[in-house]
Amino acid sequence: MTSIRERLTELRKACPALSSSSAEARNALLEEIARGLEADRKEIFNANEKDLENAKDLSQAVRSRLRFNEDKLQSVTDSLRDVASLEDPVGKVLMREELDSGLLLEKISVPIGVIGMIFEARPDALVQIASLCLKSGNCLVLKGGKEACLTNRALYESIVRSSLKCGFGGWIELLETHEDVNQMLKSEGLIDLLIPRGSNAFVRYVMQNTTIPVLGHADGLCTMYIDRDADFSKAVTCALDAKTNYPGACNSIENMLVHADIAPAFVPLMVQSFEKAGVTVTGDEKCRQYAPCTPATDADWDTEYLDLKISIKVVDSIEQAVSFIAQHTSHHTDAIITENRTAERYFMEHVDSASVFCNCSTRFADGFRFGLGAEVGISTSKIHARGPVGLEGLMTTRFLLQGNAHTAGTYMGKNARQFTHRMLETGSPSQILKG
Amino acid sequence: MTSIRERLTELRKACPALSSSSAEARNALLEEIARGLEADRKEIFNANEKDLENAKDLSQAVRSRLRFNEDKLQSVTDSLRDVASLEDPVGKVLMREELDSGLLLEKISVPIGVIGMIFEARPDALVQIASLCLKSGNCLVLKGGKEACLTNRALYESIVRSSLKCGFGGWIELLETHEDVNQMLKSEGLIDLLIPRGSNAFVRYVMQNTTIPVLGHADGLCTMYIDRDADFSKAVTCALDAKTNYPGACNSIENMLVHADIAPAFVPLMVQSFEKAGVTVTGDEKCRQYAPCTPATDADWDTEYLDLKISIKVVDSIEQAVSFIAQHTSHHTDAIITENRTAERYFMEHVDSASVFCNCSTRFADGFRFGLGAEVGISTSKIHARGPVGLEGLMTTRFLLQGNAHTAGTYMGKNARQFTHRMLETGSPSQILKG
Repeated sequence: MTSIRERLTELRKACPALSSSSAEARNALLEEIARGLEADRKEIFNANEKDLENAKDLSQAVRSRLRFNEDKLQSVTDSLRDVASLEDPVGKVLMREELDSGLLLEKISVPIGVIGMIFEARPDALVQIASLCLKSGNCLVLKGGKEACLTNRALYESIVRSSLKCGFGGWIELLETHEDVNQMLKSEGLIDLLIPRGSNAFVRYVMQNTTIPVLGHADGLCTMYIDRDADFSKAVTCALDAKTNYPGACNSIENMLVHADIAPAFVPLMVQSFEKAGVTVTGDEKCRQYAPCTPATDADWDTEYLDLKISIKVVDSIEQAVSFIAQHTSHHTDAIITENRTAERYFMEHVDSASVFCNCSTRFADGFRFGLGAEVGISTSKIHARGPVGLEGLMTTRFLLQGNAHTAGTYMGKNARQFTHRMLETGSPSQILKG
Repeated sequence: MTSIRERLTELRKACPALSSSSAEARNALLEEIARGLEADRKEIFNANEKDLENAKDLSQAVRSRLRFNEDKLQSVTDSLRDVASLEDPVGKVLMREELDSGLLLEKISVPIGVIGMIFEARPDALVQIASLCLKSGNCLVLKGGKEACLTNRALYESIVRSSLKCGFGGWIELLETHEDVNQMLKSEGLIDLLIPRGSNAFVRYVMQNTTIPVLGHADGLCTMYIDRDADFSKAVTCALDAKTNYPGACNSIENMLVHADIAPAFVPLMVQSFEKAGVTVTGDEKCRQYAPCTPATDADWDTEYLDLKISIKVVDSIEQAVSFIAQHTSHHTDAIITENRTAERYFMEHVDSASVFCNCSTRFADGFRFGLGAEVGISTSKIHARGPVGLEGLMTTRFLLQGNAHTAGTYMGKNARQFTHRMLETGSPSQILKG
């Protein structure tokens, strides 16, 4: 059997052909993959039946994510065609500059290379990830949840058949055993970016056990601060959505801070609304003065409940709110509710999270809602990609320089020629690559 | 004594004030630092005399980098004033989008947070790095070469005095012992980005021993390919500059590939020119058929000589050249010399290095020559920063969203409201942060 290292070395060889392929060729393959999945539906559904059979002791939630039926097929083929219709992210000119007469510099967007994706037992995720990598010209090595292994293999084989039909060999590789994950983490130089999905603990494990860059987020500990100058009705509306719209999501709130000046009036109103919506409230001492609830422990402020539960704390000032957030946030999304522009600006400038919102729900932190076209993930890393990441998060850049026997020595020393460094417009396609 | 962890925790607390400070305030501090260094010249020169005294057994090259005299002072104060005059990189609007009526999204550039810089025994580097971090609103922890410790301390203390005078406390921290470096590598969560400078071995050590993102490059193994359709005179001009202009630089070439069709005529010409310029040539068998030189070993193709030495190989096609480069390049800078537009385009699309050049010297891969205003380093990482990195490499982004009690639930389900997702122009300052 071939080792992971050998398989990844082979995969890497497919990068130049894929990254330099035309947008038309990549879009045609996306369409062919959709058609192929439709044609292969029987094999895929059969494989899925067997996976479901093997998973019959697992929870209803797991089985529902695992199921791949006519509806899921429709949704992945729709999504393949959507991705095909998106603007091509490859070869965008991000900067164009004349360094000197005849010496043209361009910075262009290029695929990152090989993306390593480790995901949970959701077969539709395999197709989604493959489509985003293909669109962005990246090769892909996948490791899916073991419960979905037969479905994943059927989907993978269908994608490979369509790829070969369109002349794209070897750009995608499926790994299947748990030990393969540890091999992936050690594959620096063969995998350029890891995207882990799954439990917080799993994502944290990946981040701490690889020197390959990781795109993702472990925790989603989001806080909403209700300022002294908040509109109470807006605050309740936004807080209820942020807590109850999908409590298991990473962009739901876990903590609420309330300014002391409005706490006597606001806390009872908010706690009552939460309780009516089935949310269990824990509070600090001051909060409990205004509404009876369970005392919050120190651990509560750092706990991502992922459930209908929230902790409320009363703070003396916006500065205290910001400093509480600096201490407890996972830098995912934090929000302020206020009618005061100075408070809004202070909060937005001082809270160092990927998404910082005013007068709306934290649930908007999402690639679809941001209009990114497609979401690769949500990144809390400050380097490269931050917040909801669309296709541009799968791109990197390359500097192209075109001269005519230009030498660096000419620009040095006593009679040094001067650079012009004239910035040019970047709206049009690469002048260096064209024709 | 305070531990590194405690000192970095304190440093981190200075981030919000620095990152939200105005460009005017940061520029005024840059000017104050220049004035302060001028006023403190005596202490700084005295400290440097002692460092030079202690280093009297070291090489002339080390002592010359270590020296901090009137000329070096002039150059760092000039550079401080240059950096002050650059455009403000903080708060640029990179994307602006109306998600729906009254729901405005902006992606803005913000400082990364805390930069950790480890650098060699060049005291002027301390001032340069401090100025770039300050300009970009980043806090800085520095560890300089031990030979320069007294000069570094004098420069650091002068910068701290100027900072306090301008109301900027605690944004910069100087570490002094070798053990501190290993503490820095373990400070994930406290340091956001590490920038190591020094020997290839040292940079590689840093990259392999930390989970903090690293900006930099270990090797600079650059190749120049002389295509079948190359202009011989341009090829010789560019190759001589790329090899001899500064052989110790990372952007000098170590390997040359020559197309077989032109090898009989070109190789003798090139080898003669190299030898006249004092360059030792090693070659593969075919190369040696056309010009006598030392046989190249397998190791030669992967060796960064950093010296007046080059290896020449004859290749049968541009495809073979590109695949040789894929195998041996350090992804820093590679170049093609050709008059053929198809060959140029093929090379530029298929060579996956940070900088890919045509008909010019690889020595142009440099922040100053690229007109970046200031160079933070050259990155061979594909994630975040790639190639010569200017101030924008010290920035990250934040999504700001401003609504009016907007809830995510409104956009879901049967009567879901539709997003408008209207892209707006981004030329003007943030509408969300203003006033």
